[in-house]
Amino acid sequence: MNRRLCAVVGGSSCSREEYAAAREVGRLLAREGFAVVTGGLGGVMEAASRGAREEGGLVLGLLPGTDAADANPFVEIALPTGLGDARNALVAAAGDAVVAVGGSLGTLSEVALALKRGTPVAGLGTWSLDPERIPPGGGILEASSPEEAVRLLLAALAARPGPPGRRG
Amino acid sequence: MNRRLCAVVGGSSCSREEYAAAREVGRLLAREGFAVVTGGLGGVMEAASRGAREEGGLVLGLLPGTDAADANPFVEIALPTGLGDARNALVAAAGDAVVAVGGSLGTLSEVALALKRGTPVAGLGTWSLDPERIPPGGGILEASSPEEAVRLLLAALAARPGPPGRRG
Amino acid sequence: MNRRLCAVVGGSSCSREEYAAAREVGRLLAREGFAVVTGGLGGVMEAASRGAREEGGLVLGLLPGTDAADANPFVEIALPTGLGDARNALVAAAGDAVVAVGGSLGTLSEVALALKRGTPVAGLGTWSLDPERIPPGGGILEASSPEEAVRLLLAALAARPGPPGRRG
Amino acid sequence: MNRRLCAVVGGSSCSREEYAAAREVGRLLAREGFAVVTGGLGGVMEAASRGAREEGGLVLGLLPGTDAADANPFVEIALPTGLGDARNALVAAAGDAVVAVGGSLGTLSEVALALKRGTPVAGLGTWSLDPERIPPGGGILEASSPEEAVRLLLAALAARPGPPGRRG
Repeated sequence: MNRRLCAVVGGSSCSREEYAAAREVGRLLAREGFAVVTGGLGGVMEAASRGAREEGGLVLGLLPGTDAADANPFVEIALPTGLGDARNALVAAAGDAVVAVGGSLGTLSEVALALKRGTPVAGLGTWSLDPERIPPGGGILEASSPEEAVRLLLAALAARPGPPGRRG
Repeated sequence: MNRRLCAVVGGSSCSREEYAAAREVGRLLAREGFAVVTGGLGGVMEAASRGAREEGGLVLGLLPGTDAADANPFVEIALPTGLGDARNALVAAAGDAVVAVGGSLGTLSEVALALKRGTPVAGLGTWSLDPERIPPGGGILEASSPEEAVRLLLAALAARPGPPGRRG
Repeated sequence: MNRRLCAVVGGSSCSREEYAAAREVGRLLAREGFAVVTGGLGGVMEAASRGAREEGGLVLGLLPGTDAADANPFVEIALPTGLGDARNALVAAAGDAVVAVGGSLGTLSEVALALKRGTPVAGLGTWSLDPERIPPGGGILEASSPEEAVRLLLAALAARPGPPGRRG
Repeated sequence: MNRRLCAVVGGSSCSREEYAAAREVGRLLAREGFAVVTGGLGGVMEAASRGAREEGGLVLGLLPGTDAADANPFVEIALPTGLGDARNALVAAAGDAVVAVGGSLGTLSEVALALKRGTPVAGLGTWSLDPERIPPGGGILEASSPEEAVRLLLAALAARPGPPGRRG
């Protein structure tokens, strides 16, 4: 059976508070046994990678460019997709769940595509989406702490039909 | 010099009002000399394609699947990208300008990626984005009619440094 | 009904003979009513674009980068895919038929992906593929002139089941 | 520092001999500390994944579709790219080195794109490429056994300028 993945999305530059929150998200996800996948660059991506590595977690980075050396130093598996902005669709599709921390327009595209797939997305100080435009039951799970974000995602995954994980 | 393109994005199913608005957007864009590019499917994509063809405009469809036959009947040039949701990044990048009509999460991803590129985006009854999360001067140009949407985009393109069109 | 497209693939730098051949291929395809799609850059891509424009044909360029201004001057519709090498899959999938002129490893990837889709590919001084590794009836149609290349493709398309063109 | 990756490419169906060879390649790569990346499906991809897992290696699968459940049972990290054939460009770009075992047209596209990037490629009973069309020093390293394939790649990587691995 393959491993559960959780994507962490957010800005390549971020505030100290966002960095600390994303790092704690990475730690908590690793403790829950998730591999962490990000866009591989700085800011929130680096912080989540760092936190996950601190807990011995596996960290993947799906880079927009073609050079693995662009990855932040906490990425263990760097995939230089070369796809530019289209790699955001890969990040959105990679996770069984997504945590969004802050972020700007790139993050918004990832959140939108993850929700479109029906993937649960928890948000920490990130975009608020107009509820009238979202299919029922499909919005961001707003959290006020890293712990709550991870708890909300675990609950959403547990509520799904079928066995846990991505495969039976 | 290559042609100016305008992307029209919106839901693959839509209301009668959205269909009528998108069709009028297509007509107006064709009259202004834009080639129209959409995701090639139904709803708003079909309506904009239809309007553009009615005015003799060139219509491209960037399909998510691998079969050109999935295109709506008003697409003249169907490109079966096979990229799934990642084709949204191509639609967002294809246009010198974007019009969003209604739409759900896929549309939101396209709007986000277009704004990220600095492409002017006019909106007709579409998402409202939290202005605090958008870089200055970078939001959706909200319009109340197809005419206003196209006028706003033309003004935004004219205000750009350098010669009109995509190349000097 | 949407238009027939033919992709022309080959090196971004090429010999004078290859340039002349690709330009003639572009002319012949335009006369047969094909829109011509290339990777949008120089060499064979430019030559085919130029020939097609000389005959009033429609010319698309699927660029690897994000800037439409990278297109050669004969491209009418430039799509800056931003996908890097992955745009080769789009070029291969875009055409109802493909002509390969000369070319190196990028061209080889496009020829391989087009043949994998079952798209007829005519070759002019391009790669020879080991026939033992190709599914029956699936190799490159080797031509000794632009005229023969186009004739071979028209015959291959005419031999297909169903109505001509991509849609009935 | 991030981990070295080696891609293994080949057919989704294969002979018993190819399966055995790819499995041994997977074992040897894992022993050398490489994470193994494949297209995630059956045949050679499964065999290499299986061998790597038998030696405790990390195994990634870059799937063409959108469902992680399509991965073979030996994939630990399944990335459902949704990119169709364009995912071949990702497989080709993911590895610091590539081993090709048998294979048909999809494999050929991956070999071509890897060589285009300058990535060393070892081949076991796979395509032979016309040496006149390949840039000097850029062809497939033909091997007669899994051991030789891995040895050739290690030598090619060691001969590169700069520190071992993808980053200093």
